[in-house]
Amino acid sequence: MRLSQFHLHTSKETPAEAEIVSHKLMLKAGMIRKLAAGLYTWSPLGLRVLRKVERAVREEMNAAGAIEVLMPSVQPKELWEETGRWEKFGGQLLKIQDRKEAWYCYGPTHEEVITDFARNELASYKQLPVNFFQIQTKFRDEIRPRFGVMRAREFLMKDAYSFHLSDQDLDREYRNMYDTYSRIFTRLGLKFRAVFADTGAIGGSASHEFHVLADSGEDAIAFSDGSDYAANVELAEAVAPHARGAAAEALRKIDTPTQKTCEDVAALMGIALARTVKSVAIVGADGEGKPQFVLALVRGDHAVNEIKLSKLAGLAEYRLATEAEILEHLGAQPGFLGPLKPVKTIRVIADRSVAAMHDFVVGANENGYHLAGVNWGRDLAEPDEIADIRNAVAGDPSPDGQGTLGIARGIEVGHVFQLGRKYAEAMKLTVLDETGKAATPAMGCYGIGVSRIVAAAIEQNHDDAGIAWPEAMAPWQAVVCMINPKNDAAVTEAAQALYRELLAAGVDAALDDRGLRPGAMFADMELIGVPHRVVVSERGLAAGSFEYRHRRASEAENLDRAAVLARIAG
Amino acid sequence: MRLSQFHLHTSKETPAEAEIVSHKLMLKAGMIRKLAAGLYTWSPLGLRVLRKVERAVREEMNAAGAIEVLMPSVQPKELWEETGRWEKFGGQLLKIQDRKEAWYCYGPTHEEVITDFARNELASYKQLPVNFFQIQTKFRDEIRPRFGVMRAREFLMKDAYSFHLSDQDLDREYRNMYDTYSRIFTRLGLKFRAVFADTGAIGGSASHEFHVLADSGEDAIAFSDGSDYAANVELAEAVAPHARGAAAEALRKIDTPTQKTCEDVAALMGIALARTVKSVAIVGADGEGKPQFVLALVRGDHAVNEIKLSKLAGLAEYRLATEAEILEHLGAQPGFLGPLKPVKTIRVIADRSVAAMHDFVVGANENGYHLAGVNWGRDLAEPDEIADIRNAVAGDPSPDGQGTLGIARGIEVGHVFQLGRKYAEAMKLTVLDETGKAATPAMGCYGIGVSRIVAAAIEQNHDDAGIAWPEAMAPWQAVVCMINPKNDAAVTEAAQALYRELLAAGVDAALDDRGLRPGAMFADMELIGVPHRVVVSERGLAAGSFEYRHRRASEAENLDRAAVLARIAG
Repeated sequence: MRLSQFHLHTSKETPAEAEIVSHKLMLKAGMIRKLAAGLYTWSPLGLRVLRKVERAVREEMNAAGAIEVLMPSVQPKELWEETGRWEKFGGQLLKIQDRKEAWYCYGPTHEEVITDFARNELASYKQLPVNFFQIQTKFRDEIRPRFGVMRAREFLMKDAYSFHLSDQDLDREYRNMYDTYSRIFTRLGLKFRAVFADTGAIGGSASHEFHVLADSGEDAIAFSDGSDYAANVELAEAVAPHARGAAAEALRKIDTPTQKTCEDVAALMGIALARTVKSVAIVGADGEGKPQFVLALVRGDHAVNEIKLSKLAGLAEYRLATEAEILEHLGAQPGFLGPLKPVKTIRVIADRSVAAMHDFVVGANENGYHLAGVNWGRDLAEPDEIADIRNAVAGDPSPDGQGTLGIARGIEVGHVFQLGRKYAEAMKLTVLDETGKAATPAMGCYGIGVSRIVAAAIEQNHDDAGIAWPEAMAPWQAVVCMINPKNDAAVTEAAQALYRELLAAGVDAALDDRGLRPGAMFADMELIGVPHRVVVSERGLAAGSFEYRHRRASEAENLDRAAVLARIAG
Repeated sequence: MRLSQFHLHTSKETPAEAEIVSHKLMLKAGMIRKLAAGLYTWSPLGLRVLRKVERAVREEMNAAGAIEVLMPSVQPKELWEETGRWEKFGGQLLKIQDRKEAWYCYGPTHEEVITDFARNELASYKQLPVNFFQIQTKFRDEIRPRFGVMRAREFLMKDAYSFHLSDQDLDREYRNMYDTYSRIFTRLGLKFRAVFADTGAIGGSASHEFHVLADSGEDAIAFSDGSDYAANVELAEAVAPHARGAAAEALRKIDTPTQKTCEDVAALMGIALARTVKSVAIVGADGEGKPQFVLALVRGDHAVNEIKLSKLAGLAEYRLATEAEILEHLGAQPGFLGPLKPVKTIRVIADRSVAAMHDFVVGANENGYHLAGVNWGRDLAEPDEIADIRNAVAGDPSPDGQGTLGIARGIEVGHVFQLGRKYAEAMKLTVLDETGKAATPAMGCYGIGVSRIVAAAIEQNHDDAGIAWPEAMAPWQAVVCMINPKNDAAVTEAAQALYRELLAAGVDAALDDRGLRPGAMFADMELIGVPHRVVVSERGLAAGSFEYRHRRASEAENLDRAAVLARIAG
């Protein structure tokens, strides 16, 4: 592409409306232009990137044996009533009335349409398994569209739906799609994780989210450095970091007149926060439904996970204890509490990590005092219950026994689900099985936010100068910048020759022949994130070299023609 | 593509709902599946064809210098109010209210959105000319959606919009797009015509429609066999077929007691209908606005064109004369009328062809009689007016002086317009010109009905067995049909080898390994219209040959491997 023939429109101003870096950079680079809330036009530059993502997704889906279809974006209400989602889907469903006053929606997803398609198309087990996909425009009427294409209302999505006679075959295809998604994000050059997910309201059995890792991600993810284990931090199982060690210290009382937090006590004593225990007083229900005073123990450096806690018996609707309840049960004020039970009816729940501690520090249940050198069994009874009640943290052993957990933030760009028979049953989809009997197929569904990937990739790959695309997503892999203020024919010829040579080598190259000053040209190319930049100038030609710089390199180098080609096309 | 891994779903039944052949065949071939009125899912088979059309359009648009963008399908009301089209567009505009009760529409076209994009993107004459295009889903809420994807509500369209500083530059790009459209339809292998069109309500100056020729087309087109002249029959200029010949017969009165039509008189006299003249009595207005009795004359074998007639002075609101008015002015009943003026105030308008006649037959203005051997000047005064007041017919000279007109029926699949400054002015789009002054750009717009082309191509290319695709649009160019009831390894290997060889030669080939009986397999391949069919069978292999048949050939041939490859990939 000769940029003089292209429409490039960068801006120096940082748009005030943009809250996140990808939105800012997409506007500054001129990749998108806002039409209305949550509605964006993709400029020629933005579309080049979007199409590269789309192509990678399509090719990998085809290679995985999925078959492409194209369903309408407008869907009749009647289908959504068959599954009960016309009412249940909520405000994100954009409802439309046509000129005959019939109701439709702008499809936010296509389970109903594909199941309707399948009940017309599929009659026999011989047609199974089959996995239909499409790459198509969706609409979700977000209550607060923001972050540019990251949470737009109209967006481009790849959605796939598979049909199977048996659950085992659904498992196989689910794994196939899981692997395909891994190939797609690897091919796009993105750091990502497949995260085990709660299936939540969607129903079905297994589910993984694919997250592009980025510091700005909305979700925190715990992942192993020794396996492909990954889970949302709040869902990741937290295991004890080690077995319980033997007692080495004597029990002693510490004067802590104003030290009411683990941090303060550890600081006073000059010990690691991990040697202290936090006692959280809550009230749940006993076996008969009566209020029960509970002490939940986590290590001083850990945080209680309310979801995990609420899954324990009697704690589904727990609340924090009042100061009066605490005084009544423990005889001390908050800040000095500990698991030495003054009252037998107290239920003590220790996190696994706490149960593995020795010589630890707890509140003395006496205002102004803590106890140190505390050991289970010796100084106090073993906990009533040992459970996973904390958030996983970096350094925890991976729950699958392989490696250690790290924590990263992620942006969800893909999702694979096992839907089971929910939609097939609701919409009466059956096929004849091998014995001639009607059987309800199991379904899987597999989504990728194609336009969202573009924004997520920027969140992961940028610096102060702009975007630093992975090569597979860049609008162009390489740009030849022509510096030719004197309009020297030799410079023009050399630049065009190098540009043509790159194209011939299969490189998606651009020639910046817009005649800008070098500074403005380089700033543009850094902002839009072209991976390889080669400068052709009179001075360089005189020295027989081109100035080459990779977008992520700190310095430019002078290379000859062959070396430039080897760097870019090699 | 191995068809055992594909989802092919043909049907033997002819769907009752389908009124036209393309709709029938697309349903029978399983290319589309109806979701709701005017909404269709494209099956894997149909999508293969649609994508081939889309790709041809995209590649030719890129080659022509247009730049691809992607605009939202949902558009805010405010933009449509700027051009006044929110109200004016009518019932085809699907209006949508979002959760915040703001109004939008599902875009039926994108003039407003692109002009809004342009007023943000374009600031200087240096950015012009530019032509933005997109290939995107549109919605028109047809009052009676029918004919499958031929007149669907949701459809795929390529729309392009160009911006120019001068009218001359718009003319240049208009011609560029005209040529590009010609290349697109030529590349797709379609017989088509670019038809001069009235710009009608859309505004602007020049306009051509591109029609795929098909007997079932809605529009009749007059086109030259000696130039690229083509026009809607009702708009095509009709010229006299020859100069006026010399009088050879004497004027005589013919007894025509019951012969009231040209057909009856010609039959009675045993002469060609083209030697008779039809006199149509109408009433228009004279220069002072008073009723004026007019006789419009066309040849007996021609038809009066009401649009042309109404463009003549005083005839904008003409009506047929009553029998009383006819009696008063001509003294005879309808059926026996002629241009010999009994009353001087009668205005006689002769079609150009009538003015060129000699020795012709007209009514005698006397009940029961006609006159034969009539000649202008000798037997009656020259016509008051000679004008083009008839429909062009096959055999007419082309109005551009090159060749002879034929008449064909066509399906509109493309349209190029010069919009002028209508939208730019309404939406206050300006750029700075060379002198630094704000200038309003001229615009062109260029549409192609991508999904409609698929149906139009079938209307043009089919027979009793099904679709006969032009090679560029076929779902596959060639299919290798494997007949292997004994599961003979040699047959399987030979079929797979030939299939791979075709792929390696760049042929988009399919291998029919579904294990169907030959009859069913061949019927499927003929129905879906694959151009080249090669049969690999045990018997053929024994004879060292493959059975080859082109979709349009009446007979199959036995060819060796090299000859098969030459036929298909050569």
